[in-house]
Amino acid sequence: FSVRQTESAYRYRDLVVKKQEGFTHILLSTKSSENNSLNPDVMKEIQSAMATAAADDSKLVLLSSVGGVFCLGLDFIDFIRRLTDDRKKESIKMAETIRTFVNTFIQFKKPIIVAVNGPAVGLGASILPLCDVVWANEKAWFQTPYTTYGQTPDACASLTFPRVMGVASANEMLLSGRKLTAQEACAKGLVSQVLWPGTFTQEVMVRIRELVSCNPLVLRESKALVRNSHRVSLEQANERECEALKRVWGSSQGMDSILKYLQKKINEF
Amino acid sequence: FSVRQTESAYRYRDLVVKKQEGFTHILLSTKSSENNSLNPDVMKEIQSAMATAAADDSKLVLLSSVGGVFCLGLDFIDFIRRLTDDRKKESIKMAETIRTFVNTFIQFKKPIIVAVNGPAVGLGASILPLCDVVWANEKAWFQTPYTTYGQTPDACASLTFPRVMGVASANEMLLSGRKLTAQEACAKGLVSQVLWPGTFTQEVMVRIRELVSCNPLVLRESKALVRNSHRVSLEQANERECEALKRVWGSSQGMDSILKYLQKKINEF
Amino acid sequence: FSVRQTESAYRYRDLVVKKQEGFTHILLSTKSSENNSLNPDVMKEIQSAMATAAADDSKLVLLSSVGGVFCLGLDFIDFIRRLTDDRKKESIKMAETIRTFVNTFIQFKKPIIVAVNGPAVGLGASILPLCDVVWANEKAWFQTPYTTYGQTPDACASLTFPRVMGVASANEMLLSGRKLTAQEACAKGLVSQVLWPGTFTQEVMVRIRELVSCNPLVLRESKALVRNSHRVSLEQANERECEALKRVWGSSQGMDSILKYLQKKINEF
Repeated sequence: FSVRQTESAYRYRDLVVKKQEGFTHILLSTKSSENNSLNPDVMKEIQSAMATAAADDSKLVLLSSVGGVFCLGLDFIDFIRRLTDDRKKESIKMAETIRTFVNTFIQFKKPIIVAVNGPAVGLGASILPLCDVVWANEKAWFQTPYTTYGQTPDACASLTFPRVMGVASANEMLLSGRKLTAQEACAKGLVSQVLWPGTFTQEVMVRIRELVSCNPLVLRESKALVRNSHRVSLEQANERECEALKRVWGSSQGMDSILKYLQKKINEF
Repeated sequence: FSVRQTESAYRYRDLVVKKQEGFTHILLSTKSSENNSLNPDVMKEIQSAMATAAADDSKLVLLSSVGGVFCLGLDFIDFIRRLTDDRKKESIKMAETIRTFVNTFIQFKKPIIVAVNGPAVGLGASILPLCDVVWANEKAWFQTPYTTYGQTPDACASLTFPRVMGVASANEMLLSGRKLTAQEACAKGLVSQVLWPGTFTQEVMVRIRELVSCNPLVLRESKALVRNSHRVSLEQANERECEALKRVWGSSQGMDSILKYLQKKINEF
Repeated sequence: FSVRQTESAYRYRDLVVKKQEGFTHILLSTKSSENNSLNPDVMKEIQSAMATAAADDSKLVLLSSVGGVFCLGLDFIDFIRRLTDDRKKESIKMAETIRTFVNTFIQFKKPIIVAVNGPAVGLGASILPLCDVVWANEKAWFQTPYTTYGQTPDACASLTFPRVMGVASANEMLLSGRKLTAQEACAKGLVSQVLWPGTFTQEVMVRIRELVSCNPLVLRESKALVRNSHRVSLEQANERECEALKRVWGSSQGMDSILKYLQKKINEF
């Protein structure tokens, strides 16, 4: 996606937000973190951009990213800095931040379309089943290596992954951290369709324009029908997961796991 | 399927109904609509044929069609004629007709096997997850272009499609109207198995005869076990969807969308 | 898997149970039945081995089998012998035995990883979605030919199979007894991944060692999050299925079906 300078450049540090004809395009382009990873500031900017799109005449939100990475999940560098301050307090704070972030997706009333152009990891992958349509570039890949980070699932993945791909595949991702290619993610139902890298942006835009030409009442009612049949179970899953995160991150083992993970990451370079 | 003249020819105008050894074969062959599309009369005949099969010694129902089209969904020519009469009243009436039609499938106690030999569109595709086994000819294809018709999902598709294929693929069908080949529909779980066109009827009949040789108590109890675990959620989805249809069709935008769709269809010829 | 003589050899007749570093390996190797089929004695030994693994420091259970067959389901030779004694009483007893066996899997708090190295049939296949990760040898295959045995689904398959693979594929397995290759079972979500026969054991062990290196709190909490969101519906499905089994087996048709099935089996040799 070409990054135009817009007035959004002044409102957002970690996003590029473009109000287009009929929709809002939110692109991750984080300056406060590397690889579009999510810290509380980035999450708050996404929530703010979504709140604006919810209130204006946008018929839908298109979520994508600038660069070759979609989103590498939580920003652990930022998080471990906080945790070393006050483990208990910061664990609770981070779990609450995630709870609110995830809830923004659960409650959003307009369709959220995602264009995944590169790796989607952790929270960057688990959030996808809370969106509506997911188109992936062939070069994208998907992984939720939670046990490597020493954490439990987030963004309702403990509920949505088994629903989408069955319990056997879901657990292989959630427990064993199996990495899926775009084609595998599509075969398993995490992705709607895989599009060719060379024409990815154009293909997405053709489809977006078609969606935007639809009756907005129909889009909203259709989304409500699909979402409302399990909104309550999503809310409950989000609660349970965030309580588990507090228990895990609040333990000394939890912090050790993140440190070990970061150490390994650093050693890889 | 060879169309024998039977006494059913006198009872049904839009169906061919053949009582066979152990099962009832219902074939769509509409005279009151084109391309086996569904108007209130066709739906009532299907309900009537199913009620007969429910009461007699049939162990199961085989649903298929005469000709190269399975079912193109709602008969919009008929519907728009009604709508121009009295929009509010006819919207409610049509939504109620669909509600009853769909409920017939939800409540049916014997297995419903479907042999899809050609395109299954709209209500002709969304009804499939309310049946039990779906075999498709390789030439069949599947599409629910609801937003093109300016309508919301029907036949519980807002609940069953996400369950069957995951939310990302379901929404691509329900919002973007993506068309699936028989193989794609099978990979996504909408179809049990794809059979070769040349021997489709024979292959289906071999399998039907095997099913019909089963203990009927076992067939009925097995169906009840699978169905009863989500009968209530299906009933609720049907209610919610029909309420949404009333809202959409009752609006002036709703009627415009159908007119625009029909105009486009006509222009294509 | 190489079968070491261990002290377990004295405790179990139909299993080989190996306590390893961080996990318990339970291998089916039945002497009281053929082809690792399940009679009440075998089921009780599995429950006992799982209870031990639940209580000790095992982080997970690895379930597999000795030889080229994973598990051919219920031991019908043993069962028919009992049924001819007192049909009503023995039907109830067997259904209760299955209820307890299945409940052991529903309630188990540590991850259960299954390595399927050969055919998994009936209860040997239906139990898989109650486990967490399922790796299959390419030579494995999967079938639940319940209607051939004249019985209804067990191990919550009436609930889990539709969830995992959609209702169309689930019913083809549950009603028509369709046999799936390992690759098909993987595409449909019953299996997490298919591994090459030549290195199957090594590949499984590499993955097990990685899982065992995880924080046990994270493993347990992750499993609880995934399982607890539908534990109640699994318990209810188990109840409903066992009540149906009592009705079916308690009928004279039910016993005839098993006898007919055994006769056919014998005639095949």
